[in-house]
Amino acid sequence: MERPLVVQKFGGSSVANADRIRRVARRIARERAAGSDLVVVVSAMGDTTDELLSLAHGITDEPDARELDMLLATGEHQSATLVSMALHALHVDAISLTGPQAGITTDGRFGRARIANVEPRRIRAELERGNVVIVAGFQGQSASAGAELSEITTLGRGGSDTTAVALAAALKADRCQVFTDVKGIYTADPRLVPTARQLPVIGYEEMLELAHQGAQVMQVRAVELGWVNDVVIEVLSSFEDAPGTLIREDPLVEQRNKVRGLAHDRNVAKVTLVAVPDRPGVARTVFDPLAEAGINVDMIVQNVGHGGTTDMSFTVPRAELGRAKKVLDPVVRELGAREVTTDASVAKVSIVGAGLHNAPGYAARMFGTLADAGVNIEMISTSEVRITCMIAEDELATALAALHGAFELARPDAVDAAAAGGLAAG
Amino acid sequence: MERPLVVQKFGGSSVANADRIRRVARRIARERAAGSDLVVVVSAMGDTTDELLSLAHGITDEPDARELDMLLATGEHQSATLVSMALHALHVDAISLTGPQAGITTDGRFGRARIANVEPRRIRAELERGNVVIVAGFQGQSASAGAELSEITTLGRGGSDTTAVALAAALKADRCQVFTDVKGIYTADPRLVPTARQLPVIGYEEMLELAHQGAQVMQVRAVELGWVNDVVIEVLSSFEDAPGTLIREDPLVEQRNKVRGLAHDRNVAKVTLVAVPDRPGVARTVFDPLAEAGINVDMIVQNVGHGGTTDMSFTVPRAELGRAKKVLDPVVRELGAREVTTDASVAKVSIVGAGLHNAPGYAARMFGTLADAGVNIEMISTSEVRITCMIAEDELATALAALHGAFELARPDAVDAAAAGGLAAG
Repeated sequence: MERPLVVQKFGGSSVANADRIRRVARRIARERAAGSDLVVVVSAMGDTTDELLSLAHGITDEPDARELDMLLATGEHQSATLVSMALHALHVDAISLTGPQAGITTDGRFGRARIANVEPRRIRAELERGNVVIVAGFQGQSASAGAELSEITTLGRGGSDTTAVALAAALKADRCQVFTDVKGIYTADPRLVPTARQLPVIGYEEMLELAHQGAQVMQVRAVELGWVNDVVIEVLSSFEDAPGTLIREDPLVEQRNKVRGLAHDRNVAKVTLVAVPDRPGVARTVFDPLAEAGINVDMIVQNVGHGGTTDMSFTVPRAELGRAKKVLDPVVRELGAREVTTDASVAKVSIVGAGLHNAPGYAARMFGTLADAGVNIEMISTSEVRITCMIAEDELATALAALHGAFELARPDAVDAAAAGGLAAG
Repeated sequence: MERPLVVQKFGGSSVANADRIRRVARRIARERAAGSDLVVVVSAMGDTTDELLSLAHGITDEPDARELDMLLATGEHQSATLVSMALHALHVDAISLTGPQAGITTDGRFGRARIANVEPRRIRAELERGNVVIVAGFQGQSASAGAELSEITTLGRGGSDTTAVALAAALKADRCQVFTDVKGIYTADPRLVPTARQLPVIGYEEMLELAHQGAQVMQVRAVELGWVNDVVIEVLSSFEDAPGTLIREDPLVEQRNKVRGLAHDRNVAKVTLVAVPDRPGVARTVFDPLAEAGINVDMIVQNVGHGGTTDMSFTVPRAELGRAKKVLDPVVRELGAREVTTDASVAKVSIVGAGLHNAPGYAARMFGTLADAGVNIEMISTSEVRITCMIAEDELATALAALHGAFELARPDAVDAAAAGGLAAG
């Protein structure tokens, strides 16, 4: 019988110092002793990436993207070697590999590369030698033409999740475990909603919406990659031994057809262009320069025009608000709009569940619940599996509690139990 | 006319923080503006290598040599990217390369690799694109078979000097400048001998002896490599603009034939095996286990035997004294010797100059000078270009001052002036 192959990923907080690295090593050693072949993806230790960024910004305001990638990649090289050493200290054979050594090639875009190919020859050879293979996450090389001519590229924040899922897909791993500082995916943020409950399973699409809407447990791209490649991902705690949440194609969605969880996002600000002339081409004039500046726009709402002008509102990430204003000031003058107003004390709250779109009752129940709780809705947007409302930030906890109760999220149901049973056997 | 090609090397103290990195960048930019093509080799920032070592030792007492090399190599990756960024901020085109990207392959011995080959294709291509090329020192890859299968290897402490000289040789550079925290090579350590004078030029062989005997300005192997490949190396200060010392084949040696400088070494301890049986094979019994333990032995002296036993003394690096004693205790019992005595409060002082060996007067003058100064000589060893005496450590300054005076080292002479003139034209 073949030994099962498990890919595990440990984030920066799990390897933040020598003690935690030793703890991670003990966990890996246990899994190894249980008879699995293991490929382990690690992020940089704790705040290393931020420290390297500030080192670069101490030198120049605009560090070159290529140089920055080479600099940042060292963080994962370091943690990978240290985890490998910690395994040696436990008498577990192990070897660390850089992204390029692990055969990960990317499309070569610095700072936000996408994995183009995984050729895990070296990984397989090391597994056959009996090694646990520790792979530096978050990185790859731009081409497989040899080290001399290729460049080191990084996958963007949280890219180690993507590394893990890509390796699991390429190696046809039996499991892909993502260890984090939370125990799994919850029906809502347990820090804000005390009755929030951990989900045993969640579908890819639902997880994508949760991730998009601010649940920062997993990188969006990693979930997408898992979906496309049918990799079952388990999110679980690196600090305690407990089952996590499985992200996978969910055959029970059709039976369930209900709200699975709440997401919220405080990293958002509302921008309103007041009294914009109501004529064709205005939207392009507003949004093209924002796109060029790399500022993501979300939840666009345009009020019904009156007197030849209209108000246009949308959201941007809160950290980008200053830049967005700078970009928009000349646009407002060009359009002859009255002014730009902004509000950074807002938040988004979403209900997420496969099939919500086909069940109009959910939207009505969401709006009614918020109204009953005295929470004013400023904007609304929807997708196939999500309904999102923008509200005042200081009403976020009230809104989450009310919605969590209204959709009975604290109560595990028969479908969850069946799903959990299915998983244990899977 | 071809642009001159200059290789520059900056050590860890020259790039220890953002300010110093910016200063290094300004110096590089000046040289660039003067019309040179430039390849710049950098060490890790300040104490980075020590910090990485202590990180590894926080995980395990005996870090794996392969993992340690991959860990330590990140220090130079980081400094190389930061120097490149600092040049960009000065509007100088630059690119950083890892040792493997720079085409440096080694014999694959972790922690003490030797450069096996330099294939500077990528460096030449980047120079042609108009870039200043910043190369991470101290490292290479174990084979040129592609990143997947090769390993990162480091060249041992001070290995960046070797990287610079090897690149200068491979690129047939016009100059190889090693920037340090001293202004050049001195007739003696200026901290101990106030009249010590900077030498405008020194031969490879003399420099080798100075380096071997404790002058820590340059790595021994880098000097050897320069000698074999006829690379003229200039040692100069990274903190001030002043001519340094040239290390090169010295056509004036025959005319000079005199003491060029003094070296001293405090990192030494004396070991004496008392009353060792005077029979064949004893030396092997003593020195084989020390060699196996990787402890370098120097200055071996065996007293004339009397009564069938003899005393045997030698020196070891002071930091190795504890280990040496542990290795020797069973040896003493095996041999039936009386005891091992040790003395860590000793130092070596050397006079260095090409051709000393053929001029016996120098030895006599050295011994006489030390006697007149009241300094007792405990051991003596000589080479072609050096005479070394072991003395008590607390008499070191007295000995250096006396020898510096006796050999008239404070006075520049006609030969030096001629040498300097020759260099300026070279």
